Amino acid sequence: MRVVQKYGGSSVATAEHIKRVAERIRARHLDGDQVVVSVSAMGDTTDDLLTLASHVSAHPPPRELDVLLSTGEIVSSALLSMALADLGVDAVSLSGPQAGIRTDSVYRRARIAGIDTERLERELAAGRIVIVAGFQGLAENLDVVTLGRGASDTTAVALAAALAADTCEIYTDVAGIFTADPRICPDARPLRDIGYEEMLEMATTGARVMHARAVELGSLYGVEILVKSSFDSSAPGTLIHRETTMELGNKVRGIAHQEHVSKVTVRAVPDRPGIAAMLFEALAEANVSVDTIVQNASVEDMTDLTFTVDPGDYAAALEVVNRVAAEIGAGEVVSERDLGTVSVIGTGMASAPGYAARMFRTLFDHGINIDMISTSDIRITCVVSADGVAGAVRALHAAFELDRAPDPIAGATSS
Amino acid sequence: MRVVQKYGGSSVATAEHIKRVAERIRARHLDGDQVVVSVSAMGDTTDDLLTLASHVSAHPPPRELDVLLSTGEIVSSALLSMALADLGVDAVSLSGPQAGIRTDSVYRRARIAGIDTERLERELAAGRIVIVAGFQGLAENLDVVTLGRGASDTTAVALAAALAADTCEIYTDVAGIFTADPRICPDARPLRDIGYEEMLEMATTGARVMHARAVELGSLYGVEILVKSSFDSSAPGTLIHRETTMELGNKVRGIAHQEHVSKVTVRAVPDRPGIAAMLFEALAEANVSVDTIVQNASVEDMTDLTFTVDPGDYAAALEVVNRVAAEIGAGEVVSERDLGTVSVIGTGMASAPGYAARMFRTLFDHGINIDMISTSDIRITCVVSADGVAGAVRALHAAFELDRAPDPIAGATSS
Repeated sequence: MRVVQKYGGSSVATAEHIKRVAERIRARHLDGDQVVVSVSAMGDTTDDLLTLASHVSAHPPPRELDVLLSTGEIVSSALLSMALADLGVDAVSLSGPQAGIRTDSVYRRARIAGIDTERLERELAAGRIVIVAGFQGLAENLDVVTLGRGASDTTAVALAAALAADTCEIYTDVAGIFTADPRICPDARPLRDIGYEEMLEMATTGARVMHARAVELGSLYGVEILVKSSFDSSAPGTLIHRETTMELGNKVRGIAHQEHVSKVTVRAVPDRPGIAAMLFEALAEANVSVDTIVQNASVEDMTDLTFTVDPGDYAAALEVVNRVAAEIGAGEVVSERDLGTVSVIGTGMASAPGYAARMFRTLFDHGINIDMISTSDIRITCVVSADGVAGAVRALHAAFELDRAPDPIAGATSS
Repeated sequence: MRVVQKYGGSSVATAEHIKRVAERIRARHLDGDQVVVSVSAMGDTTDDLLTLASHVSAHPPPRELDVLLSTGEIVSSALLSMALADLGVDAVSLSGPQAGIRTDSVYRRARIAGIDTERLERELAAGRIVIVAGFQGLAENLDVVTLGRGASDTTAVALAAALAADTCEIYTDVAGIFTADPRICPDARPLRDIGYEEMLEMATTGARVMHARAVELGSLYGVEILVKSSFDSSAPGTLIHRETTMELGNKVRGIAHQEHVSKVTVRAVPDRPGIAAMLFEALAEANVSVDTIVQNASVEDMTDLTFTVDPGDYAAALEVVNRVAAEIGAGEVVSERDLGTVSVIGTGMASAPGYAARMFRTLFDHGINIDMISTSDIRITCVVSADGVAGAVRALHAAFELDRAPDPIAGATSS
């Protein structure tokens, strides 16, 4: 069997952690499996490197930030390979470029174009464990680029797809995907399995266990992803896969949330073609990553346009919006910082409108005011005040009986 | 003009240091020069990484150590490039492999096989300052390898040779090459220039300002090397070049020393062909780097063989020597740890035997016992007790009038 594993920063935070991870990898190797590992930088290394960069430059060029940040994963890959050698197993560390990971040339958030597996296959054929530095690849111009925060997940899933691995295991500091964040919802349970689309909605609306792009990639290439605790090997973890059990289609699977969201509303926007494009192009140019966008129905050729952003982008967003609003002759710009979101997620909710009603009723019953609503086929998100988020998650978790719902066994439903 | 500069670890120890170095590089760039920089890892980074490695593995594989250690220079190259961007000049950092530095496959002390300058020339042609991570290259098997401690000097000189640079400047924490170590000899003066061979003897016998391999390379390719202080730009520094002034040939140029040397003597070695080879091959296999070797004239087909090693290799050396001595039927093995060396260096000393006599007389007059003697054409080295080293350096510095000798101006004698 061929397995790709990924170990996150908290799993390799210290030399002791690395030695424990090495033991686990060795056991798998001795079972006769071919093992490829994608590893993150140790603990807070990436943040430390960013701090260092901020001390030498107010605006470090993205290309150089990528050179700098890529070293974090190279360090942990070398250390993990050494720890394996110390246990008597043959391992080799490869940087993203050495592992054949080709990307586009977008610094700080490059996308994987393909993986040349020749060296990986050669090392595996020689009986070696291959430790790949996650989060990085080689752009066409031969520059080292990084794939965005948390992208060691993406590296792992891409490797699993390219190497036709039998399984892709993501080791993290929690026991799998939970029905809600257990830190604020004590009744939350780990799911035994979840569909790609549901997991994507969980990931993009605040469940930080898994990188959304990794889930997309898994969905695209049909890579089944097992999310497990690297600290508690007895926990079965959560399998992310293509759901095959029809009757699960209507269930709410989890409650996701974001504790820190800011909102910007432009009032009385002239309802002309191209206006929204102008605004969001200007935001993209300023590198503001926009989250949810809501535009109300037009009244007298005027509309209100609202979007949410990460608080880190709030100041930049306001600056851009005030400028563009003046240019296009819109009304006042209203904004609010201390907001959060809470989302109910489950396949097929769109075909069962009772879910939305139950969500809004539950929030009303708990005195939580809904500031904004946005939905997808399998998700309903409400923007609420930041201090209402935790209570909202607990109330919804109970209202949708997530604390009680029996969970299907992954093995029985996987394809 | 095209210049290659090298900045050592102490010159880039902190963000503040890096910004100061960037200012200096920018000034050179604004003068209209093409600038390529070889940079070392920040401060104690390399030692810190080695410590980290020792915590995950008792015997880290050299290949993985190279992967690990190479990140130190990549970090400083990226930070220096960022600092330059912050000053408004266009710079690009390149790892050793990206800079086209090809090496053999000897991990931890690879040698440069050649430099493919295509990318370097392209970046220079685009008006960019190029910051190359020192101390590393790409082996034929596409592994990253390091060139040995202190080898950022070698990277700089190799780059200067390959790029046909007009000058190679080594910035360090001292004001140049001194007639002796100013920390133990207050009268020591910086030399304005020195020949390659003299500098080589200085470097290999304890003057740690310059990496010996870099000097060799400079000599081989005729690269003139200017060693300067990165902290005191008013100091002229020392030019290492091919000496052209005949009358300087007989001068003693400097006193070098090593404070920590260990000595191993094998007594009554059978004087048969191949015996020395057996011993030193076994030492090489155990990765023991042998310094000076002295073999006395044979008496009754028996000889004494003595060599010095770094105290770090002392235990390993003794183990090997005891084993081999038994195998070849030699006599007892005698060893001593707390020794040092003191060397008098100057071109053409071999043709003026009075220098050796003056050296031995000076040591005798100061009550310093000579334990062992070794000479080359331009060097006389005495092994003495460790606690006699500092006094010996001061005494010899005075005896050879190095405190008084007028020093020629570099510019007047360079070719």
